[in-house]
Amino acid sequence: MEKFKDWIEKATILLEALPYIKRFYGSTMVIKIGGEPMIDEESKENLALNLILLKYVGINPVVIHGGGQQITDLMKSLGKEAIFIEGLRVTDKETMNITEMVLTGMVNKDIVGIINHHGGKAVGISGKDGNLMEAEKLDKGSADLGYVGQIKKINPDVVLTLSEKGFIPIISPVGIGHKGESFNINADTAASRIAVALHAVKLILLTNVRGIYKEPGREDSFLPTVKIKEAEKQIKGNIITKGMLPKVESCIYALKQGVEKAHIINGLIPHSIILEIFTESGIGTQIIK
Amino acid sequence: MEKFKDWIEKATILLEALPYIKRFYGSTMVIKIGGEPMIDEESKENLALNLILLKYVGINPVVIHGGGQQITDLMKSLGKEAIFIEGLRVTDKETMNITEMVLTGMVNKDIVGIINHHGGKAVGISGKDGNLMEAEKLDKGSADLGYVGQIKKINPDVVLTLSEKGFIPIISPVGIGHKGESFNINADTAASRIAVALHAVKLILLTNVRGIYKEPGREDSFLPTVKIKEAEKQIKGNIITKGMLPKVESCIYALKQGVEKAHIINGLIPHSIILEIFTESGIGTQIIK
Amino acid sequence: MEKFKDWIEKATILLEALPYIKRFYGSTMVIKIGGEPMIDEESKENLALNLILLKYVGINPVVIHGGGQQITDLMKSLGKEAIFIEGLRVTDKETMNITEMVLTGMVNKDIVGIINHHGGKAVGISGKDGNLMEAEKLDKGSADLGYVGQIKKINPDVVLTLSEKGFIPIISPVGIGHKGESFNINADTAASRIAVALHAVKLILLTNVRGIYKEPGREDSFLPTVKIKEAEKQIKGNIITKGMLPKVESCIYALKQGVEKAHIINGLIPHSIILEIFTESGIGTQIIK
Amino acid sequence: MEKFKDWIEKATILLEALPYIKRFYGSTMVIKIGGEPMIDEESKENLALNLILLKYVGINPVVIHGGGQQITDLMKSLGKEAIFIEGLRVTDKETMNITEMVLTGMVNKDIVGIINHHGGKAVGISGKDGNLMEAEKLDKGSADLGYVGQIKKINPDVVLTLSEKGFIPIISPVGIGHKGESFNINADTAASRIAVALHAVKLILLTNVRGIYKEPGREDSFLPTVKIKEAEKQIKGNIITKGMLPKVESCIYALKQGVEKAHIINGLIPHSIILEIFTESGIGTQIIK
Amino acid sequence: MEKFKDWIEKATILLEALPYIKRFYGSTMVIKIGGEPMIDEESKENLALNLILLKYVGINPVVIHGGGQQITDLMKSLGKEAIFIEGLRVTDKETMNITEMVLTGMVNKDIVGIINHHGGKAVGISGKDGNLMEAEKLDKGSADLGYVGQIKKINPDVVLTLSEKGFIPIISPVGIGHKGESFNINADTAASRIAVALHAVKLILLTNVRGIYKEPGREDSFLPTVKIKEAEKQIKGNIITKGMLPKVESCIYALKQGVEKAHIINGLIPHSIILEIFTESGIGTQIIK
Amino acid sequence: MEKFKDWIEKATILLEALPYIKRFYGSTMVIKIGGEPMIDEESKENLALNLILLKYVGINPVVIHGGGQQITDLMKSLGKEAIFIEGLRVTDKETMNITEMVLTGMVNKDIVGIINHHGGKAVGISGKDGNLMEAEKLDKGSADLGYVGQIKKINPDVVLTLSEKGFIPIISPVGIGHKGESFNINADTAASRIAVALHAVKLILLTNVRGIYKEPGREDSFLPTVKIKEAEKQIKGNIITKGMLPKVESCIYALKQGVEKAHIINGLIPHSIILEIFTESGIGTQIIK
Repeated sequence: MEKFKDWIEKATILLEALPYIKRFYGSTMVIKIGGEPMIDEESKENLALNLILLKYVGINPVVIHGGGQQITDLMKSLGKEAIFIEGLRVTDKETMNITEMVLTGMVNKDIVGIINHHGGKAVGISGKDGNLMEAEKLDKGSADLGYVGQIKKINPDVVLTLSEKGFIPIISPVGIGHKGESFNINADTAASRIAVALHAVKLILLTNVRGIYKEPGREDSFLPTVKIKEAEKQIKGNIITKGMLPKVESCIYALKQGVEKAHIINGLIPHSIILEIFTESGIGTQIIK
Repeated sequence: MEKFKDWIEKATILLEALPYIKRFYGSTMVIKIGGEPMIDEESKENLALNLILLKYVGINPVVIHGGGQQITDLMKSLGKEAIFIEGLRVTDKETMNITEMVLTGMVNKDIVGIINHHGGKAVGISGKDGNLMEAEKLDKGSADLGYVGQIKKINPDVVLTLSEKGFIPIISPVGIGHKGESFNINADTAASRIAVALHAVKLILLTNVRGIYKEPGREDSFLPTVKIKEAEKQIKGNIITKGMLPKVESCIYALKQGVEKAHIINGLIPHSIILEIFTESGIGTQIIK
Repeated sequence: MEKFKDWIEKATILLEALPYIKRFYGSTMVIKIGGEPMIDEESKENLALNLILLKYVGINPVVIHGGGQQITDLMKSLGKEAIFIEGLRVTDKETMNITEMVLTGMVNKDIVGIINHHGGKAVGISGKDGNLMEAEKLDKGSADLGYVGQIKKINPDVVLTLSEKGFIPIISPVGIGHKGESFNINADTAASRIAVALHAVKLILLTNVRGIYKEPGREDSFLPTVKIKEAEKQIKGNIITKGMLPKVESCIYALKQGVEKAHIINGLIPHSIILEIFTESGIGTQIIK
Repeated sequence: MEKFKDWIEKATILLEALPYIKRFYGSTMVIKIGGEPMIDEESKENLALNLILLKYVGINPVVIHGGGQQITDLMKSLGKEAIFIEGLRVTDKETMNITEMVLTGMVNKDIVGIINHHGGKAVGISGKDGNLMEAEKLDKGSADLGYVGQIKKINPDVVLTLSEKGFIPIISPVGIGHKGESFNINADTAASRIAVALHAVKLILLTNVRGIYKEPGREDSFLPTVKIKEAEKQIKGNIITKGMLPKVESCIYALKQGVEKAHIINGLIPHSIILEIFTESGIGTQIIK
Repeated sequence: MEKFKDWIEKATILLEALPYIKRFYGSTMVIKIGGEPMIDEESKENLALNLILLKYVGINPVVIHGGGQQITDLMKSLGKEAIFIEGLRVTDKETMNITEMVLTGMVNKDIVGIINHHGGKAVGISGKDGNLMEAEKLDKGSADLGYVGQIKKINPDVVLTLSEKGFIPIISPVGIGHKGESFNINADTAASRIAVALHAVKLILLTNVRGIYKEPGREDSFLPTVKIKEAEKQIKGNIITKGMLPKVESCIYALKQGVEKAHIINGLIPHSIILEIFTESGIGTQIIK
Repeated sequence: MEKFKDWIEKATILLEALPYIKRFYGSTMVIKIGGEPMIDEESKENLALNLILLKYVGINPVVIHGGGQQITDLMKSLGKEAIFIEGLRVTDKETMNITEMVLTGMVNKDIVGIINHHGGKAVGISGKDGNLMEAEKLDKGSADLGYVGQIKKINPDVVLTLSEKGFIPIISPVGIGHKGESFNINADTAASRIAVALHAVKLILLTNVRGIYKEPGREDSFLPTVKIKEAEKQIKGNIITKGMLPKVESCIYALKQGVEKAHIINGLIPHSIILEIFTESGIGTQIIK
């Protein structure tokens, strides 16, 4: 009968998730995954199980992924050097081809493979499919970044079609130009724009840090919750910088356009997605209106 | 960060339910509740939460309840003695009225109230509603049991209608005669017949004992799994008797008519329903073909 | 051939109903039945046939019933005295239990039984089912009436679900508190609020008098039609009083919230429902805007 | 109060129709109307009201009409003589044009007009529309009857489309040849074939006689019910002849192909359609299997 | 291989239609056909094929036809003289009967026959069916034109029902009065009103002239495109007169009520419909806002 | 007016396609494209327009593509040698990665880009998405070909979902193993199996030769039509060999499993797809039962 005590405790834990399941039943959540969690096998498996669980309890996850490191790796193998200007990869025609092959043909299908292996039904597409992300050359003044693009319009039909039929859409951040050509789109921005177009309740950005700090470097200054206004102040004050800057900006954009909450969490913590969604305080930083 | 370790463990437990959720997604389970679990508040609350969780993870629970003790109580208050012949309540017109008021007007609505209080959407009906259980006088030879009935036909439309629209149907075991009069139906039998009509994957009978024993009285002879043939042998050998007999017979009937598995479990163990469904070995006795 | 003449007359009568059938096709009518018509068998049968006919000619009847006399009867049998303050039954916990058993477990199922016996498909629920009537304690100043409730919110989903699938919903006037507990709701008020929530074209209150009189007691002062304004004047002038007062107030409320017409008719006249609906002048008092 | 007594009687008559309404709810009935009832105004109005009533109580009437007299009239006006061989109109190209104009352009629209005037929604088509009646030249051995056709195939799509959307289809008996040309089809045959294709429960042929007699001419030998076998015997014995012969043959064909009952009734009796459907014995002859 | 060159050219032509197919996919076009194109066989066949092609490439054609010459012909055969006042046919009861028979019973079914012969699914109705065109006597001051009507209201349900189910509706311009009687409606006006009610993108009027000329009589003054304002100026200046006047007025009405473009084209040019729709300049005059 | 003559000819050509459009309306055609047509821009554009036209005229094209040359090219750039055994590429883990990136990330998205640029709505997926092509290691006896796979099961849901919602599915021939890993699948085989699973009416294989010859090398021995039996004889007689062999075998498989016709055509001829579908004789070899 000892076994039972243990089990009952487990059942109790299961039931603790119920209020969250009720709250989010039927809603859509857009989750952006960096390239890193896709490198070790256990993280990938955890990620897959988290997404499948969401789908089964009535939440519609939509995934956008990155893959910067993997692009740089293939470029190296092909004897090409990766050049960045203000954090943006200079993307000539050949680099765009490499980028698209790596993102859409490798990272994307890797995620699809692991989810489907665990019993989910993932379908991987890029922003070119069904004209999901109409893009144009990013206007950056003097510097010519080549095929780095900015989003003109989101056509969410293909995502909705897949999502409604029980599939989990996995999206690689490649946009389509008006001649059908490809554009390299920032994955955080893509996630933010797609979250808005899908009327998502949450935008969740998986990173490799815990979230936002009042004083970066001081662990005890971690901020579990940040309001838009504070976040904007921190940006002005150069406290939010570098890699975190576009993430926070993407969150603010999504919130202002109607997404209910945005989250920046550490994707390296096992099950970080369901921990963030199914516990009151969460494990990362939530940004709210 | 200690908190996280604990949480991750919790998330792991949540994910252990995933294979069961996948297996039973979209299926129907008929659960019979005796009157006892409806007496203490904590059991009722646990029961409610279990049913709501099932509904949210895509399983359609349908509940049939009893209430013998509560009927006897009201009879006493009204100065009427309860008489039983071979375990069946002699049910004259007045007793039938009392039975129906207690089952349909009290026990049933009590379950509805507790589920809805916890955020579910229960709808309580009796076997008269939508002609769900067409009944006739039980033929018992010499003894006249009055309005004790046997089921002629199940018309599951009203249950399907409610279930498909997101409601949890709660059914009191009162049947309807061809003149519109009420009949007192055995709740185990009712559950079994309704499970068959709904093409349920599981029939779960909640009792106040652990399940079936090879040698009743010896705890170490408990049987986690029993095949129909063994059960029938035990019945012949008078090992299964008294209150357990109609339960096992109901299970056998359901299995022979297409229900995949039947379960006899102890409803007094907290969360016994989800423990039985979401663990491999379960906590009670499962009867299989 | 004599037979034919008679028949043709009958067919002519049938066709006289056509303009009313056309006018009300597809609409919903909420009908409140007092406890009295449920006492003699012929009235019950007439009532059942009237409701079934409405359903078949494309009108959706929704029934709310009372049952005060039957509650008092059971209280007496249990040695409890019925106490009223300003026409409202003082409802302690035990009285609430009795009330719910009588209304939901007896009167309601009696109506269901008679309708289904005559070939209709009735489904009886209470205001607790599907959270149909969310209620709270009625605020009556000094006097503590116990579980006498007032309606906070109507959630008509369960009624619509049943009605659309061909069932006739029969509703007992018991509301659900925020803890899942039961509240005793005035049936006239319940009917009025449900009529509004269902966008009913008619609210019909069956009583045991003919309708409204200009000078109560003088038969020749009977008013076939009363405008809201007149009714309000009569209330102010204390001409409408006692049992009639809450009925007329319920009608006025419904009309002001969008119901097209309200009717107060004598439920003891055979077929009073279809006579009121299918003849130009009707048999009772219609209240209009 | 005298008024009420009268009214209650009327309501009682209305309710007598209920068992028939229940029995035929959702079913289709094919009704063939000769040209005669379309001549006097009162008959037309009665007919219209009967059809509209059927539609409102959930029965789908589909009407096929004739118009022989009206064709002969127009031929005369145009100085053309009507010639018949074995009861069939010799139909050269010009006669076919006249036939189609009269049936489809006049008789059909006359029925449509009267029904729509009384609040129904009739739509008149011919057997050419939507290829409803594919026809070919009738093979009659030596005699060349021109454009007299026989049915090759019924495509009921257009009728079902209209019927499901609440319209009453009125069909003129003109078939379409494989070159798109028109064929003159016997209306009784057309009704019979369409009844089969629509899985109608009843085929009703309106004539100007009471029905079938055991000994034609002797009123007291009238047969309210005839079995197929008897009817076939009467045909062999030359008791059923002339105009009645094709009618009875059409009925037998329909019954053998699955229609439940066929009726031959006198269309000149007011409300003969609803009298035949809504009374137990009916007013004409019913032919059964 | 010579064959291939020829074929590839053909395929190229097919593909030239693609931009137009894309543009008009799912839209409705109302096409008015005069009686003339219905006289020679080749024109009729071309017309049928044009309409069928439109239907298959996802455009919903709705046809309204005239038939003035054919009416006059039958009147003559019946010894009746056709009288016109200001271009409008004086329509006594008998003339109305003839008009309806010719339009609805002959011209309409002729079009249906030819389309269905070529594999389309046409259904011919008149403005009486489903109360499509509610009409009243045209008020023309002193002159009594009899049953010449003007449209009061369009009820497009019957057309939408047929169109959505894959049928091509063919409409004869006969309206229904409030007593169910018939009215003779100008076909151009009918087309214009129906185009508005169906939210058509195009109204196309087939005539026997090329379109609108700046100086009628001078071929080189032909106007491929005319704006509403210019057209109105031409009307004021008496340049657009006679038969062309009601056509241009119908076009202007439709444009002002939301139709995107109106076209007046020569129906005698083979395939004029698809030439007008599937080429940039078209072959007739397009009238635009 | 000269212009018109030319135009009318064009319209006539358009109408010549009508019988084919009618015949194939609503059907599915699976089209396999080799890597070659994807190399020059004009061919790609022609291909895109052909597919879009099919979609607009109600045919559902589903495309499977190859890309062998492009794989070999990238392998070279990465300093890897392509090795073939019996025409099959030896596919170690690294080669599989390259294969997937090229097929799914480059060739596939190139086709999507060009179709969407021309106004179609293409969505590119691989056989991993939605578990479309469940695969396992190809059993080739002694030789270890690594990740060369054979199809175990087709799950066509994702293709049907996209096709029904108006998208053109473009499929790269990568299968999914039971661990979620990727397998290199022969594109002809994939096309054949998918055609069967989708109940396609046609399987069309685009190659760089005209089709099948009785005596390869002799142009005048070209066979426009070949029956399965003849094809099997030619295979036995070693007349069909090398690259043509798997294509013909794929065709035979598809035909035997229910596809109506298979076609081997020269994809380098402009518009070869619509020429094959929309002309009676076609331009390549059709294989029939």
